[in-house]
Amino acid sequence: MSSARHYTLTLSCPDRVGIVAAVSTFVANHQGWIVEAQHHADRVAERFFMRQEILAESLPFGIEAFREQFAPIAESFQMEWNITDSVQKKRVVILVSKLEHCLYDLLSRWQSSELDVEIPCVISNHDVFRKFVEWHEIPFHYVPVTPTTKADAFDKVMHLFDNVKGDVMILARYMQVLSPEMCDRYSGRIINIHHSFLPSFVGAKPYHQAYERGVKLTGATCHYVTADLDAGPIIEQDVIRIDHSDSVDDLVRYGKDIEKAVLARGLRYHVEDRVLVHGNKTVVFR
Amino acid sequence: MSSARHYTLTLSCPDRVGIVAAVSTFVANHQGWIVEAQHHADRVAERFFMRQEILAESLPFGIEAFREQFAPIAESFQMEWNITDSVQKKRVVILVSKLEHCLYDLLSRWQSSELDVEIPCVISNHDVFRKFVEWHEIPFHYVPVTPTTKADAFDKVMHLFDNVKGDVMILARYMQVLSPEMCDRYSGRIINIHHSFLPSFVGAKPYHQAYERGVKLTGATCHYVTADLDAGPIIEQDVIRIDHSDSVDDLVRYGKDIEKAVLARGLRYHVEDRVLVHGNKTVVFR
Amino acid sequence: MSSARHYTLTLSCPDRVGIVAAVSTFVANHQGWIVEAQHHADRVAERFFMRQEILAESLPFGIEAFREQFAPIAESFQMEWNITDSVQKKRVVILVSKLEHCLYDLLSRWQSSELDVEIPCVISNHDVFRKFVEWHEIPFHYVPVTPTTKADAFDKVMHLFDNVKGDVMILARYMQVLSPEMCDRYSGRIINIHHSFLPSFVGAKPYHQAYERGVKLTGATCHYVTADLDAGPIIEQDVIRIDHSDSVDDLVRYGKDIEKAVLARGLRYHVEDRVLVHGNKTVVFR
Amino acid sequence: MSSARHYTLTLSCPDRVGIVAAVSTFVANHQGWIVEAQHHADRVAERFFMRQEILAESLPFGIEAFREQFAPIAESFQMEWNITDSVQKKRVVILVSKLEHCLYDLLSRWQSSELDVEIPCVISNHDVFRKFVEWHEIPFHYVPVTPTTKADAFDKVMHLFDNVKGDVMILARYMQVLSPEMCDRYSGRIINIHHSFLPSFVGAKPYHQAYERGVKLTGATCHYVTADLDAGPIIEQDVIRIDHSDSVDDLVRYGKDIEKAVLARGLRYHVEDRVLVHGNKTVVFR
Repeated sequence: MSSARHYTLTLSCPDRVGIVAAVSTFVANHQGWIVEAQHHADRVAERFFMRQEILAESLPFGIEAFREQFAPIAESFQMEWNITDSVQKKRVVILVSKLEHCLYDLLSRWQSSELDVEIPCVISNHDVFRKFVEWHEIPFHYVPVTPTTKADAFDKVMHLFDNVKGDVMILARYMQVLSPEMCDRYSGRIINIHHSFLPSFVGAKPYHQAYERGVKLTGATCHYVTADLDAGPIIEQDVIRIDHSDSVDDLVRYGKDIEKAVLARGLRYHVEDRVLVHGNKTVVFR
Repeated sequence: MSSARHYTLTLSCPDRVGIVAAVSTFVANHQGWIVEAQHHADRVAERFFMRQEILAESLPFGIEAFREQFAPIAESFQMEWNITDSVQKKRVVILVSKLEHCLYDLLSRWQSSELDVEIPCVISNHDVFRKFVEWHEIPFHYVPVTPTTKADAFDKVMHLFDNVKGDVMILARYMQVLSPEMCDRYSGRIINIHHSFLPSFVGAKPYHQAYERGVKLTGATCHYVTADLDAGPIIEQDVIRIDHSDSVDDLVRYGKDIEKAVLARGLRYHVEDRVLVHGNKTVVFR
Repeated sequence: MSSARHYTLTLSCPDRVGIVAAVSTFVANHQGWIVEAQHHADRVAERFFMRQEILAESLPFGIEAFREQFAPIAESFQMEWNITDSVQKKRVVILVSKLEHCLYDLLSRWQSSELDVEIPCVISNHDVFRKFVEWHEIPFHYVPVTPTTKADAFDKVMHLFDNVKGDVMILARYMQVLSPEMCDRYSGRIINIHHSFLPSFVGAKPYHQAYERGVKLTGATCHYVTADLDAGPIIEQDVIRIDHSDSVDDLVRYGKDIEKAVLARGLRYHVEDRVLVHGNKTVVFR
Repeated sequence: MSSARHYTLTLSCPDRVGIVAAVSTFVANHQGWIVEAQHHADRVAERFFMRQEILAESLPFGIEAFREQFAPIAESFQMEWNITDSVQKKRVVILVSKLEHCLYDLLSRWQSSELDVEIPCVISNHDVFRKFVEWHEIPFHYVPVTPTTKADAFDKVMHLFDNVKGDVMILARYMQVLSPEMCDRYSGRIINIHHSFLPSFVGAKPYHQAYERGVKLTGATCHYVTADLDAGPIIEQDVIRIDHSDSVDDLVRYGKDIEKAVLARGLRYHVEDRVLVHGNKTVVFR
């Protein structure tokens, strides 16, 4: 990602001749300087995907004018498209339970500006990380969840998220299954880190499942949340080697390192508009 | 593995005080030189596993005398145990279909003595690799398998295997589901390479399944064959990174490299008596 | 890589506005269907790199007409450029010594058409693989190399290579240091597999060096050969985990698997025109 | 590592018959329950290495009596040996500069008890992390280092370390080259994380060096500090894949994740007495 101010244009459309020519000619005609460009033609889906980073100062107009002038091209190719401005930092709301590792890791990256986002608040169903979060001068909201209060609690979470104009919700080991309504409402905007190499070991206690099955690698998966548990589009995955001498506790410990790295990579891809979803799969222009 | 002649003692038994002391004192009292030793105490199963390589020439007696003299110790600890002599090379029968990569790879390793085994024959349900195998001066048996002749074909395979006194049968992408009887009869002696990271993508066409699910890593699993399809004890696994730009054909191509490496490692562990099976899991003393 | 006949256009030039627009408009104006496209802007070198696969049948003319009509565009952007036709298979000459693993692996991939090239001959300074190579119906040339005959031997190798119109020469563990003249003459056309993770362990006996240093991973590097030993542009690398229990022989054994995979990937990138060299670095459009 | 109180016995000695028998018989005669045991015979150095975890409550005596009674055995085999008690947590002093990632990561692991040590203080040559460290209720010492005050500063660091009875000093990206005296004085007790896959890219700015060389993987190395810069015994290493599109900043970002994971693994091996140093190499009983 360029550190200079830039617009990021992402699009997908039915594949045909002339898409790149049309887009790049439009950009070139306005003297737009492309710092990064990626294409992908999915031959099975017969669909074309594209991402371009254009230096803002190289263009003679702003993002709104870009939208207006680009719209006819987009229409003629039946594009689904989006353009974002790098000065508008994404607003990331973190949901966390009692496990600290992903929270520490995300705040560490945010603190050092490696993760170039705003964190308007952290929401938790436990009150344990209040002081740690507040030390970072980030508001902390304690929203307990019990079997009987679940619906109300999720309403409160959505209210908080909407209130801070959240762009993306991170389930940083939140350990609660969201309601189908919530998954639909924020489709493509809720990211979960699951502590297994999906589709292996869906659901509860994946490290125990992995131990029982005797696998020789353990992993983690960062994916968009859908109403179908642990079955949403996968953004990023990784694994680490284990062996017979490793207990469930060892798997948990190894797994935490993978979870942190995979979640951080997946979140970065998302906030840099590198992930395009199509059906239940992702194109990740890393 | 020591290149000098050695005995390999493997054992497992209920865990208790004094197992290592008893075994190592027995070996030391006969001036046995241990070149490699591994232990594992499974705290969940409360079972102890051990492997020792002892230089043959350091002992005053042969393997039969070892067996006799060690038997009382083994009995007192309720050991399941085995001892092998490195001069008795394992006899590995390879079953193959029309895919060449695992066959080439195994013969390459055998040719260079990296894989220190005998290959008394190769069996295939197609006649395509006859000349290639025979060029290596290894007998080749063509045993066609059709839906109606399956039982007879497997009988013939078992007959061929028994006839050459096979120690282990390798399904090097054999692409046939063995009968439950065959799986039971050679329990712990049939090794399969499955082209996915199990337990993900059991059964047919795992690369297609992986492509559909949009995973970001593809893998392979080397495991003992049981009557339960692709569910036997896992010996070795590995993965390689893929992305959205990879077609099913690309997955097949990447996967072949993982299959070869994983099968070769798993087979080596097996023939060097590094794998101890307990329930549906393995202890692999690499 | 598309299996349908296609042209692969690769180019690099000083970075500026309008390159992609010019190239893609040229292609689109002739109804060229782009099946794969990659770009890279090197901000340090201020240079732009591009690769496109265009379906041959979508264009109204052949590769010669393409060259003629594209030349003015190339000139106006000061491009270094090349276009190849997928029906013209690359001619790969393999040089080998007494180590079998890379040779077996390459021939296995060639045999199964995974590696879609012609192998006009294999050249070796030992006569050990003659029969194996000839069994594949590939000519085998035995060109012994001694300290006193080295210059003559290399002349003979160059003569053989030129004679079969070789496109690329593979040092598949050839174990001979080529002359600077030979490196210059075939610049960017000789690929070596070095058995370490370069720049660690340059020169002779890298596995011994790695053992002495006590590293925890061992690797291999596929690179273009230059007159500067093991210092040419790197195409591909990989590593595998080792530990204190691994002897030099174990490192050799683990390393072979990495060598094979890394050489095969690097060679594929090269023959599919995915590698663009700039200075001593490569852009690899995988 | 067992969570129940245990003693960890580590030893090395010239290899010969009877070592394991002597040690395990001693332990068994006192009803010692061994929960974990590892051996390694280095055939080149002709030296034997061993580690055992013994349940404290299974023995009829304490650690001092163990030391006394075991001493004659140790002497007869010329052992270098050590025994530690798991209730005596290791005291880890962290030295840090202005880079936050390793500090956050270590404190996160300490906070959650994954890293089961005491952190008596953090020392830094910058004052930036005072509040963050103190929030964790860990004393923070600001010891500035300038070219002229270096000797005094290091004296102060040593004084602080000795004062809190530090067991091990962690250079968590401390960015200062220690004096040879300091390296000698705490031999085997200072651990550094170097941001390259050693022995590649020794010294300053390894990510820049890696970028210039065009490597396809970047890594990190956790090692004991010796007077010879970046050349001490290696404890742990790992790598991550990069490509031509990654800038130096990208390498730094990817590298941080590897640094954190590698330092955490290396430190855990050290504090659990899993690392035995011999010459410039380590035996790591993971």
